[in-house]
Amino acid sequence: MARIRNAFFALLCLTLQMINVKCVRYQPTWASLDARPIPSWYDEAKLGIFIHWGVFSVPSFSSEWFWWNWKGQATPAVIDFMTKNYKPDFTYADFAKEFNAEFFNPAQWTEAFEDSGAKYIVFVSKHHEGYTNWPSKYSFSWNSVDVGPNRDIVGELMNATRAKKSLRFGLYHSMYEWFHPLYLADKKTGFKTQDFVNKKTLPELYEIVNKYKPEVVWSDGDWEANDTYWRSKEYLAWLYNDSPVKDTVVVNDRWGKGISCNHGGVFTCGDRYNPGVLQKHKWVNAMTIDKYSWGFRRNAKLEDYLSIEELLQTFVITVSCGGNMLMNVGPPSHGHIAPIYAERLHQMGAWLKVNGEGIYSSKPWTFQNDTLTPGVWYTMKKNSSGAGVTVYAFTFDWPGSGTLSLAVPQASPSTVVTLLGFSGNLNYTTHKPKGIDIRVPVIPINKMPWVYAGSKQRTVGKKW
Amino acid sequence: MARIRNAFFALLCLTLQMINVKCVRYQPTWASLDARPIPSWYDEAKLGIFIHWGVFSVPSFSSEWFWWNWKGQATPAVIDFMTKNYKPDFTYADFAKEFNAEFFNPAQWTEAFEDSGAKYIVFVSKHHEGYTNWPSKYSFSWNSVDVGPNRDIVGELMNATRAKKSLRFGLYHSMYEWFHPLYLADKKTGFKTQDFVNKKTLPELYEIVNKYKPEVVWSDGDWEANDTYWRSKEYLAWLYNDSPVKDTVVVNDRWGKGISCNHGGVFTCGDRYNPGVLQKHKWVNAMTIDKYSWGFRRNAKLEDYLSIEELLQTFVITVSCGGNMLMNVGPPSHGHIAPIYAERLHQMGAWLKVNGEGIYSSKPWTFQNDTLTPGVWYTMKKNSSGAGVTVYAFTFDWPGSGTLSLAVPQASPSTVVTLLGFSGNLNYTTHKPKGIDIRVPVIPINKMPWVYAGSKQRTVGKKW
Amino acid sequence: MARIRNAFFALLCLTLQMINVKCVRYQPTWASLDARPIPSWYDEAKLGIFIHWGVFSVPSFSSEWFWWNWKGQATPAVIDFMTKNYKPDFTYADFAKEFNAEFFNPAQWTEAFEDSGAKYIVFVSKHHEGYTNWPSKYSFSWNSVDVGPNRDIVGELMNATRAKKSLRFGLYHSMYEWFHPLYLADKKTGFKTQDFVNKKTLPELYEIVNKYKPEVVWSDGDWEANDTYWRSKEYLAWLYNDSPVKDTVVVNDRWGKGISCNHGGVFTCGDRYNPGVLQKHKWVNAMTIDKYSWGFRRNAKLEDYLSIEELLQTFVITVSCGGNMLMNVGPPSHGHIAPIYAERLHQMGAWLKVNGEGIYSSKPWTFQNDTLTPGVWYTMKKNSSGAGVTVYAFTFDWPGSGTLSLAVPQASPSTVVTLLGFSGNLNYTTHKPKGIDIRVPVIPINKMPWVYAGSKQRTVGKKW
Amino acid sequence: MARIRNAFFALLCLTLQMINVKCVRYQPTWASLDARPIPSWYDEAKLGIFIHWGVFSVPSFSSEWFWWNWKGQATPAVIDFMTKNYKPDFTYADFAKEFNAEFFNPAQWTEAFEDSGAKYIVFVSKHHEGYTNWPSKYSFSWNSVDVGPNRDIVGELMNATRAKKSLRFGLYHSMYEWFHPLYLADKKTGFKTQDFVNKKTLPELYEIVNKYKPEVVWSDGDWEANDTYWRSKEYLAWLYNDSPVKDTVVVNDRWGKGISCNHGGVFTCGDRYNPGVLQKHKWVNAMTIDKYSWGFRRNAKLEDYLSIEELLQTFVITVSCGGNMLMNVGPPSHGHIAPIYAERLHQMGAWLKVNGEGIYSSKPWTFQNDTLTPGVWYTMKKNSSGAGVTVYAFTFDWPGSGTLSLAVPQASPSTVVTLLGFSGNLNYTTHKPKGIDIRVPVIPINKMPWVYAGSKQRTVGKKW
Repeated sequence: MARIRNAFFALLCLTLQMINVKCVRYQPTWASLDARPIPSWYDEAKLGIFIHWGVFSVPSFSSEWFWWNWKGQATPAVIDFMTKNYKPDFTYADFAKEFNAEFFNPAQWTEAFEDSGAKYIVFVSKHHEGYTNWPSKYSFSWNSVDVGPNRDIVGELMNATRAKKSLRFGLYHSMYEWFHPLYLADKKTGFKTQDFVNKKTLPELYEIVNKYKPEVVWSDGDWEANDTYWRSKEYLAWLYNDSPVKDTVVVNDRWGKGISCNHGGVFTCGDRYNPGVLQKHKWVNAMTIDKYSWGFRRNAKLEDYLSIEELLQTFVITVSCGGNMLMNVGPPSHGHIAPIYAERLHQMGAWLKVNGEGIYSSKPWTFQNDTLTPGVWYTMKKNSSGAGVTVYAFTFDWPGSGTLSLAVPQASPSTVVTLLGFSGNLNYTTHKPKGIDIRVPVIPINKMPWVYAGSKQRTVGKKW
Repeated sequence: MARIRNAFFALLCLTLQMINVKCVRYQPTWASLDARPIPSWYDEAKLGIFIHWGVFSVPSFSSEWFWWNWKGQATPAVIDFMTKNYKPDFTYADFAKEFNAEFFNPAQWTEAFEDSGAKYIVFVSKHHEGYTNWPSKYSFSWNSVDVGPNRDIVGELMNATRAKKSLRFGLYHSMYEWFHPLYLADKKTGFKTQDFVNKKTLPELYEIVNKYKPEVVWSDGDWEANDTYWRSKEYLAWLYNDSPVKDTVVVNDRWGKGISCNHGGVFTCGDRYNPGVLQKHKWVNAMTIDKYSWGFRRNAKLEDYLSIEELLQTFVITVSCGGNMLMNVGPPSHGHIAPIYAERLHQMGAWLKVNGEGIYSSKPWTFQNDTLTPGVWYTMKKNSSGAGVTVYAFTFDWPGSGTLSLAVPQASPSTVVTLLGFSGNLNYTTHKPKGIDIRVPVIPINKMPWVYAGSKQRTVGKKW
Repeated sequence: MARIRNAFFALLCLTLQMINVKCVRYQPTWASLDARPIPSWYDEAKLGIFIHWGVFSVPSFSSEWFWWNWKGQATPAVIDFMTKNYKPDFTYADFAKEFNAEFFNPAQWTEAFEDSGAKYIVFVSKHHEGYTNWPSKYSFSWNSVDVGPNRDIVGELMNATRAKKSLRFGLYHSMYEWFHPLYLADKKTGFKTQDFVNKKTLPELYEIVNKYKPEVVWSDGDWEANDTYWRSKEYLAWLYNDSPVKDTVVVNDRWGKGISCNHGGVFTCGDRYNPGVLQKHKWVNAMTIDKYSWGFRRNAKLEDYLSIEELLQTFVITVSCGGNMLMNVGPPSHGHIAPIYAERLHQMGAWLKVNGEGIYSSKPWTFQNDTLTPGVWYTMKKNSSGAGVTVYAFTFDWPGSGTLSLAVPQASPSTVVTLLGFSGNLNYTTHKPKGIDIRVPVIPINKMPWVYAGSKQRTVGKKW
Repeated sequence: MARIRNAFFALLCLTLQMINVKCVRYQPTWASLDARPIPSWYDEAKLGIFIHWGVFSVPSFSSEWFWWNWKGQATPAVIDFMTKNYKPDFTYADFAKEFNAEFFNPAQWTEAFEDSGAKYIVFVSKHHEGYTNWPSKYSFSWNSVDVGPNRDIVGELMNATRAKKSLRFGLYHSMYEWFHPLYLADKKTGFKTQDFVNKKTLPELYEIVNKYKPEVVWSDGDWEANDTYWRSKEYLAWLYNDSPVKDTVVVNDRWGKGISCNHGGVFTCGDRYNPGVLQKHKWVNAMTIDKYSWGFRRNAKLEDYLSIEELLQTFVITVSCGGNMLMNVGPPSHGHIAPIYAERLHQMGAWLKVNGEGIYSSKPWTFQNDTLTPGVWYTMKKNSSGAGVTVYAFTFDWPGSGTLSLAVPQASPSTVVTLLGFSGNLNYTTHKPKGIDIRVPVIPINKMPWVYAGSKQRTVGKKW
């Protein structure tokens, strides 16, 4: 049957090519799968919002790895927290009943995400705890309809996201589950058996794609077993060839031990990956506003959150080097996003309103950062006229001397220098053979297009 | 491989027969499976204790079918109970956290079961709700270790049962689960797909037998799909041929639509089955002390419980007609058996101490009940001398006239009539061709071997 | 003002006496208060039902003294229970939220109480924990409307009781509260300050009488301080002179250190007081069906409950010696009375239906128990003709020999001996100068008016 | 006795005056009480932190008036919240058990308060709900030790506050309680009875002062009854004459109907009182960072919180007109202050580090705001030399033209103009007869001593 179908497609493909339609069937090999271009919307988007929400949001302590920290690793702080605040026989699953989501209003979420200037979201459909935020057929009694909120969270969020024209909807999914007995049994055999993959991981991965049509499938929790165990290549071939999102879906690279940073779609490599140099392959910096956790921590301190300056620097470096930034928000179990997160989202959006021109749809330039002045990073865009390019330099420090000296740009007589959000051109002088000294005007604070304070560092986009 | 193995067994079997060892391999056909004799301990035991315990013991209202009554059938009383006492979004799985089992002491349970005179127990390992009372690999997060008691209830009870020499350990298991999405999906296909059976029912059935070695496997919840869907025959062949309990295990007849009362081991037919006439096939009357529920009901009234007189009548009729009685106890969620149940158990045991001679290891007699005096039921035993039999007549009413007239016994001159628990012989006269009038002595209450009051009916065993 | 009022009443009283109306004003002295006759309904009633219900019904472990056993006395079993089943900071008041009373149906309660043959009830309005089962003005946030059931339990039960013509309504009230800070402060001063009495105990005592008009006021928790501290005499004078229940109210004797068994209304002396000899003063045996607790214990065993035979013996001895029996029931926190209690209540009622003639409105006889045959106790009633008396003998053992030999009754030729519930007269022979041998007929069990089994002892009323 | 004591004090007083020691005994009259000078530390402090924490922090919805909104006023949003999320019989007191305070670390709180530049705190010891955050003798079972946190919150916070040299400790206390039955009973009599005051309000007010020695006693909830009912004058006389804090305590003006804004200590008039003109009497602007609530709201939005610019403007206007600002923080029920609050506190402190010179210990100047340039407010300090004063002008807008024109200051030739946090003098020209044009230097953002962005308005202190 499968062979006949393949033959049919080969024939169809030939026919289409005859009328000049591109036609590809991906094979379940990395050679074939890696050849698929990443849909262009993704690189243009630059900023996405990651959202971690689950049963871990109930203890809301330590991190989304709470269960593992408690029972797997026996972290003293977590054991102490449980000992002081819960009865001895309390189990992790006992938390689920308290996952009430009483203030979960998906339209409010997407409002905040849109406000941040992000162009897509990636929602944790299931984390390593195994609890599914949708009513999965494969997670009876351990999903958001059966216990806790009594709502199809993924479905509601999908609808709210699609109601926003500017946002695309993506899903994160963990392949492994720390304490799933079928997984542990497979692991015990050195992953020779595949009960867990066949009964749990794969059925879920098909289910979420067929049901919610996410345009990002962000796999995780793959690292203990290889791609053969996970049957990842077969899944990706289906996703690219036959799934309802085959044309636009973007995946990442966590599809088995040794695969991350080597194969798949966008490279994530490690969490908070930010290499600081140009990468050959499209990559993403998945990071989180709370420095220590992806899930909401009720006892997080102000200093545990990245400041807007820190977020902007990370973002600019990431984009300069060809990456996207997937910035994580952890909502509390009641579902109303904490104001500190809303503030950061809003600040990102405010900055992008002024400086987005140098970010969205930009490309890495020949140079990523300047060799003379530290803290200056570049992006580039082809001019719409088709002739020449616009180079954007972002500096983290306002030039103290009033002159911003850059080593790598090479100005021609027709070069114009401007400051994003500031009208008028900036004066400059050039070096030989290249380099430029830009006179930065002394702008009173009420004329500044953009300021962030509280630290000495500020991030301002500049445009040639 | 399987064929080679079968061939090997056939060869082995032949060899064994040559040295006069009985050797049978059951085939997965009813013809073969039905040919297996029911292990003799079962018929001798006569009385077993059924125990229903699960998440339904938390609401402890309506019955163990609470979930179905609430969400499946929308019983007004259950909806009203939920509306009055729980928040609108409360789910059934939310109850599990409150299943605390804080007083569950399995040794106390088996003490009470032994006290009742029962010889085996059948514990609900999983009811239609799907919650497993053991840490099943196939019921992640919906089992008694993951949520609620944090204990392996089946395991603890197995150990306590085995510590009692007089008790054998059995397990009840529901094939279907009302709301399991995989079951519902299979059902939607007209049971053409078998996802649920393959991923859930069968793995569990193998797991409980391998892990807990129950000598009764009491299947239930089979009635919507046939035995082919459930793969029952294959399972039973394994159970009879290769399982760790192959020599002593007794099963019932609920293995698929149309199977009950026709195939399998002991026939259960319907709940509280008590045909009142002799059956050709070994059968069991599964009934419960609470007339309206198998699970504990917090609001059960005194009159909802069968009186000891009602229990004894049911028991005597059942045994007379060749059945066993499986009498159900429903413990509260905290695990301490309610005194009203303990009282009934104790009363059964007290009666059996006097009258057990006519019950345990007895056989149905030629006649089951008398044709002249209503409420007289018979059992029989071969005399140990090998010559002749002892017939036991149980009467529910003390003969008002002082004479118990029976139509069917035929006395010979050497016939001796006694009253169990009462010393000395009873006078009688005989009829022609058969029948007997027994002079029942007027016994003052303090000399009565056994009395139960509160109703006009009393049950006393008499022996020829 | 008070003096003028007293003067007015004295004048009124004089006037009333002139028209032959009895008129008494009680003074706040024991001499005056003790002179008040106990309203006659009380002695006639013989049997009352005591009900202990409160926050202690939530842990439902150890006893209604749970809080004291935990925090006051540090009973190891209670500490262990808390350690195993609750988080470390759990407080006693935290239990109150779980006092749901979801099955509390006061009409069902009074149905069961009436069924027992009791003629009045005494409900714990407030136990030593201080939680009031009515919305007291003096127990804000620590009462059954403010936290837990959200119902006026006392009020609902009062209405249901009054709907039963055969039942009178009474209230128990604890003067002290183990942990009330104002009480502890008064105690620290050697009870020289009276903050607690003035702000709590007395206002409550007035409140319950004015609001619910109980015909029994059963005081308790008095023993650490004297009657002057409690201002008991003043309260009783009000209760007898001016309260809405002044004509029918019956009180007990727990009104201060040294008062119990000496002053007040009915003497309770200690709990389960049953002196076994005739008392000069009307007394009551306050006892409980659960031998070890007045509050419901979820883990009580069958053997912890008094059997009906034990209850009846206690009752008969109590009545013979001039006492009432106040038999306690402890409902679970959900409010549905456990069947074991309902059974005992029903058994009492069934016995009283046959034997009540010798109980209700009876008086102690010259002799309380027989000097020849142990276990025979007497009551007496004047014949309605006015001539002679009927003596009732209760025997705990059925006469083995068929003859009941009694030393103290003196039969005249016209003496008739009968067995309650059995038609026809019994033969007897008399001794000189007194004593009687009664021929007890050999009654087959189906003709017995009354039997209880399970123990060798049975209680049967006999009538001369 | 009281008269003798008063006489003794009068004598003592006379003696003291003879040796030149000021000696005053305040009388319980407003004339006498109002004559007491407000201790000087208070006016110097300018900024205090208000903290609202209690059972209302558990629903954490609507506001600290949750109970009233629900049951008193039947606000639809609150009724809807309860209907959706709680069972029908849920009571307000049922919330108390969930007040866990698991992250309450008082040292972290006082760290954050100190960081804000505040010099004192006022903690809600008891709000209108009646729940006391200390183990009051007068609030049995409705206090933070008996139910919920099981901690003496007031005591712990007092200790942590005293460990900070820069902070003084104050307590808020509500006189009335919405639903206290004794209060409601007094109210029903038109406040002719005083049960509630005598048993509850006054004992508590004495208790908190004697036990915790607060230097601010912030009364509230007085408005329905007059000061005679509350016995406020007598209490204040005690507080000023004999309490352990008589020398340093500062009170407010909410001591009875018609008293606020007229008598007492610091005038609060209404909540968020900010008259915008100089007041004759010392006053305080009690306001809150969340515009809509004093208690924490889990679902508060970012825009519900005042921005740092809004806070600073309010603060500057308040101080200019002679007021203190008491800025409120509402912690969540778990006790860890939300980062958005910590951020505002930190921002206030950062601003005060630069601009505090013009705030702390400043006095209102002749003019409060400028008549020419809107948004310019003044404070003043005497020069330490004793000759002349320093006037501080705060402008909310950076002068767009580079010149800040002020109408009311009158410069002398020796007048020097500086910018706080900026080295060097500013050039200016003067008007006749008064007025000044200050040349504001164009300062690049990296040289700005202080910036806040996000709105067009910025608040910068300037100094002559």
